[in-house]
Amino acid sequence: MSAPSLAAAPAVFELGLRVYWEDTDAGGIVFYANYLKFFERARTEWLRSKGHGQEALRRDAGLMFVVAHTAVNYRAPARLDDWLLVDVQVTASARASLTLAQQAWRLEPDGQRTRLADGSIRIGCVDVVRHRPHRIPPELLQALS
Amino acid sequence: MSAPSLAAAPAVFELGLRVYWEDTDAGGIVFYANYLKFFERARTEWLRSKGHGQEALRRDAGLMFVVAHTAVNYRAPARLDDWLLVDVQVTASARASLTLAQQAWRLEPDGQRTRLADGSIRIGCVDVVRHRPHRIPPELLQALS
Amino acid sequence: MSAPSLAAAPAVFELGLRVYWEDTDAGGIVFYANYLKFFERARTEWLRSKGHGQEALRRDAGLMFVVAHTAVNYRAPARLDDWLLVDVQVTASARASLTLAQQAWRLEPDGQRTRLADGSIRIGCVDVVRHRPHRIPPELLQALS
Amino acid sequence: MSAPSLAAAPAVFELGLRVYWEDTDAGGIVFYANYLKFFERARTEWLRSKGHGQEALRRDAGLMFVVAHTAVNYRAPARLDDWLLVDVQVTASARASLTLAQQAWRLEPDGQRTRLADGSIRIGCVDVVRHRPHRIPPELLQALS
Repeated sequence: MSAPSLAAAPAVFELGLRVYWEDTDAGGIVFYANYLKFFERARTEWLRSKGHGQEALRRDAGLMFVVAHTAVNYRAPARLDDWLLVDVQVTASARASLTLAQQAWRLEPDGQRTRLADGSIRIGCVDVVRHRPHRIPPELLQALS
Repeated sequence: MSAPSLAAAPAVFELGLRVYWEDTDAGGIVFYANYLKFFERARTEWLRSKGHGQEALRRDAGLMFVVAHTAVNYRAPARLDDWLLVDVQVTASARASLTLAQQAWRLEPDGQRTRLADGSIRIGCVDVVRHRPHRIPPELLQALS
Repeated sequence: MSAPSLAAAPAVFELGLRVYWEDTDAGGIVFYANYLKFFERARTEWLRSKGHGQEALRRDAGLMFVVAHTAVNYRAPARLDDWLLVDVQVTASARASLTLAQQAWRLEPDGQRTRLADGSIRIGCVDVVRHRPHRIPPELLQALS
Repeated sequence: MSAPSLAAAPAVFELGLRVYWEDTDAGGIVFYANYLKFFERARTEWLRSKGHGQEALRRDAGLMFVVAHTAVNYRAPARLDDWLLVDVQVTASARASLTLAQQAWRLEPDGQRTRLADGSIRIGCVDVVRHRPHRIPPELLQALS
């Protein structure tokens, strides 16, 4: 019997973040549009963890990622002071776009996780001047895949 | 040949709104998550136009709508000072949920429209205390359909 | 007996706006930071009413207004579905800055107004490239004063 | 000559945070209203560091803090990807309110700090039901002072 292969482990990046007043609405829970913000914070830190800050990408290569499509399922509400974990995983890549699966979880006091939302986000690489699709730089694509 | 029947006309509600600084991001365009806000403003005014303010629904019936699923395609960017039109149309209804098609358009100076984003939003009716699914009140469902 | 002088009338601009879910927080009321957004929407429409859209100012003159100082008193809470009136009045002007008094009111069902917040906002005119203070164009200053 | 007294050291709490797309506006910089969000995140973590999460305060004591007054000076702009440090210091306390001095700094690559904004925030303790002023619980006041 062989041990699980490390190579087969899913390449999941995860960001922790706190729910603040600004994130909630009068229903007492996190306003659903804000999960898109949480997902983006995780994508930004995931890019940074690969050595590609977006401000540098913009300044040095004249490129930025724009969001082309989002689909989100809302499963359970988050509340003020909750500690969330938001993950990122590449599910598909093309010449000028990436599709990512993202999930937001609440870390419960007992260490368990409750899944709050999951989504699929497609981002496209564009030049900052004309906002036209542009090939993802090969070294960036390789770092992200 | 008969004229198109008014009864057959799609029941589309439309809200106009302005793009302000708060809506934009450093890419110089409207931050994509904010289309969910625009869509919700339109749904809120659509409910009100049917005689059902959400604060009253909450206070009188103990009910609220929560968003269960969102899917949005981003087609063209909006910019500061743009005047947008956001529409709402019911595409499906169930006991405790509604699915809506929504689009955001920019009204161009020449009166033409440019489609910026379109989406499908599923909202569920829940009681405000336990956040459990609750049947949409029949008179509300009838007014919305 | 003389008629009230038009010249003596306070030059107050007023914008009406609705409170949506996005504006509220888990306390059930409008998140206080959002009054700065409401104040800015009113300033933007006030500028437009004077014939000076900010996107045009940016494109044509290479200028923008940035906020240098804000002071806000929060007096009463606003809630979902409230209809607010937000006003703008110039209280001081200098070569490259303006100080504005702004108030947010709730329009009550009986037509009375409840003052929710008031503030003083100082905005500075800067060039869009270097963000350095720049003289307010005389025709703009005249239109605003 | 005596060494500096530890007792005399200013009791400053500090939170680090990243600037994301959601925080910026079309001017390419952090939208000024968002400093109020940053200040609040720091206050929330400062309360937590003293052993008083706001959700617990709400649930257990029926109390919450509301913002009564904010005054903010904007000194330099923050940009995407900047790492900010936001501090909190009590400058005055009363029966049912606290006044806090808060500053936001950018941590530069060379380790220096640039002050971006500073403000004075007065928060009042209220009961969650009627939003009436309520005495700050003595043990909380002692922990915070």
